[in-house]
Amino acid sequence: MSTERISVLHMPSIALGPGASLEAGHHLQALGVTRVFLVTDEFLQRSGLIAPIEAAVRADGLDVVVYAVPTGEPTENSMREAAEACVASGADGVLGVGGGSALDSAKVAALIATHGGTLRDWINAPLGGARVPPGPLMPVVAVPTTSGTGSEVTAVAVLDLPSDKVKTGIAHPFLRPNIALCDPELTLGLPAPITAASGIDALLHAVEAYTSIPYTQRPKPASAGARPNYQGAAPMADIWVSEAIALVGKHLRRAVADGSDIEAREGMMLAATAAGIGFGNAGVHIPHACSYPIAGLKHAWSPPGYPGEAKFVPHGLACAITAPAAFRLIEPAVPERSRRAAELLTGAPVDVDDHDAFARALAQLIADIGCPTTITEVGYSEADLPDLVAGAMLQQRLLACSPIPVGEAELERVFRESL
Amino acid sequence: MSTERISVLHMPSIALGPGASLEAGHHLQALGVTRVFLVTDEFLQRSGLIAPIEAAVRADGLDVVVYAVPTGEPTENSMREAAEACVASGADGVLGVGGGSALDSAKVAALIATHGGTLRDWINAPLGGARVPPGPLMPVVAVPTTSGTGSEVTAVAVLDLPSDKVKTGIAHPFLRPNIALCDPELTLGLPAPITAASGIDALLHAVEAYTSIPYTQRPKPASAGARPNYQGAAPMADIWVSEAIALVGKHLRRAVADGSDIEAREGMMLAATAAGIGFGNAGVHIPHACSYPIAGLKHAWSPPGYPGEAKFVPHGLACAITAPAAFRLIEPAVPERSRRAAELLTGAPVDVDDHDAFARALAQLIADIGCPTTITEVGYSEADLPDLVAGAMLQQRLLACSPIPVGEAELERVFRESL
Repeated sequence: MSTERISVLHMPSIALGPGASLEAGHHLQALGVTRVFLVTDEFLQRSGLIAPIEAAVRADGLDVVVYAVPTGEPTENSMREAAEACVASGADGVLGVGGGSALDSAKVAALIATHGGTLRDWINAPLGGARVPPGPLMPVVAVPTTSGTGSEVTAVAVLDLPSDKVKTGIAHPFLRPNIALCDPELTLGLPAPITAASGIDALLHAVEAYTSIPYTQRPKPASAGARPNYQGAAPMADIWVSEAIALVGKHLRRAVADGSDIEAREGMMLAATAAGIGFGNAGVHIPHACSYPIAGLKHAWSPPGYPGEAKFVPHGLACAITAPAAFRLIEPAVPERSRRAAELLTGAPVDVDDHDAFARALAQLIADIGCPTTITEVGYSEADLPDLVAGAMLQQRLLACSPIPVGEAELERVFRESL
Repeated sequence: MSTERISVLHMPSIALGPGASLEAGHHLQALGVTRVFLVTDEFLQRSGLIAPIEAAVRADGLDVVVYAVPTGEPTENSMREAAEACVASGADGVLGVGGGSALDSAKVAALIATHGGTLRDWINAPLGGARVPPGPLMPVVAVPTTSGTGSEVTAVAVLDLPSDKVKTGIAHPFLRPNIALCDPELTLGLPAPITAASGIDALLHAVEAYTSIPYTQRPKPASAGARPNYQGAAPMADIWVSEAIALVGKHLRRAVADGSDIEAREGMMLAATAAGIGFGNAGVHIPHACSYPIAGLKHAWSPPGYPGEAKFVPHGLACAITAPAAFRLIEPAVPERSRRAAELLTGAPVDVDDHDAFARALAQLIADIGCPTTITEVGYSEADLPDLVAGAMLQQRLLACSPIPVGEAELERVFRESL
């Protein structure tokens, strides 16, 4: 087998710092935009976070049409409606402000407003037509309001298809925003539990990418166009995820303990964006695969700190619960990277014989910031293991990035150790 | 004074690895290009390095018009002619293959073919009109054939204006190529002295960026559009330049000793590109400022390993000669970064009381790879000091990035220590 020798890094421009979101108008104008479709979500629109950004864009002389998607995960309906509103607005550029849902909706709105087609045309096969954009999209500027998803720098949009009872996506390098404006002041009001859950999501993006199967162990693609979007661990993704792990180690406990600590907030915002660049090119694996059934099968737990009474397991927590067990499982395949990840996270040297250092440091961090540490706490028992394993097995696209082959036995072990 | 709080990182997509240059057609096509203006230089065209790349692009179904600029620094005439040829070619995208000269010519050809105007319209003030591109350029794919300039990821094009007897440039974020294809196989034939000179240039890009004045010590710009292209040291530029320094430490001696060492060649290619990303956002300072008069005032030295009999000091060597003295000068202002740079370059811890570690490690590396270590060797004497100082003082745009104020006395000290 001929193996891959080329690695690719795609990323947008990034502006980082307090007030960066108020410069959106400048960047849109530099990209040639005159009329902006501003996509946010209903919760943020009510929160007052959007008004200053909208006002700043208008003050720069641009027309603005504001559109709020429903708060929560995007669905086929909500994304189609956002795209239709974008087309109707006559905008020549899109500004997304929000968490992953608003940003993913912004990307898809720009895709359809630029290249037409129906939402299903663009969705990954087999549920959609997996159409390939024939060229770049109208400019997209992304402003994250949490430090977690990395959507501001990734090339995917994720959505629920209720009619098919699955979560799927649209993925192409042209879906990456042109520039991400990472403004830590927008996260000062996030409650500690949301800071914790999104921060752990960012850490896992980074460490899963860092320990994913090396790109050089993948088969050489038939052509450059056949190269997967998630390429596995590679030198340029490593640069970003190493930095992300170290930043989380320095800043996450501080940001959770004191939400007004702007230095910690800026550190976490860069961590999440850096992790997004890394996993957006390298991929994620076991903990993310396990998060799907944990979040999907039962709705028995009310996460503290989240608005409303809804029972659900936030994405970052659903990933975190099995992560220590998953990293224990893969350590023999990636001993040096596991050790290095522990050193980056703790800032202290790790003995070469200490094979449990990263899993231990991760479990300690998860506990310290008040996240659940077992699937039992969020409503699962031993009787649920077969369903959890079956649910994780469906995520073959993610499991393909694991540094070891992962089947039912391996997933069973990971879930069992997480009871 | 209100100070800057926002840092910006602009960079293109990057593909890295043996054979990456042969994928140019795919990337051009993905960017919507059907007819390519391929800019290289006459030496490379004769060398046979271009033909396989041209053939691969044609095999992907694109039309190609090849244009070779004269080997050597671009001049006003050579750049204007390249731009006119690009316009006449009817191309809708540009592929630059070469060192800094070919790549800079490619950027300017795309600028003028997209937005019109004369070359002087776009050149920096006061010599030119400093016109601002109203939007992105037609796609540009950059393929470097040396590991040094970083032009494949920077937003400037440098040229000589013989009529004004100065070197100047065109600078705007839209001049950055869309993607850099970093193919270490293209550098396997570089002679050791060129490998050394370009490698030292890359290292100095990285270390000068790393030790440039922190962006937070700069005044807050009146608007986002008034922010300088060279922002000073900042967190995201640091990520790249730290990596670049470590890569040079690991790979430059190997690449000089054995040009066929593909791992070292790939390490140096990533180092140069990473350094280009860093200094293209942060800036360079004293050694680069001093290189202008060293290269410009006398032509008394024939660099070994370069083609022809021409007497000149290659850019990387002109920067390297004064670099140890320059880093000794600034160390008291940036002691932690100097120590960290030494640790990254040598891979070994440095004592906190060792204030000379980086200057020493740098001088050792320069000597080990066979570069001249004094301005005396390239033809200067004590009598030339006033002219050298006066020449470096002209580079205020670069000296503004120094972590300490630099006047004639400081430059005199640097040149004198380099005799």
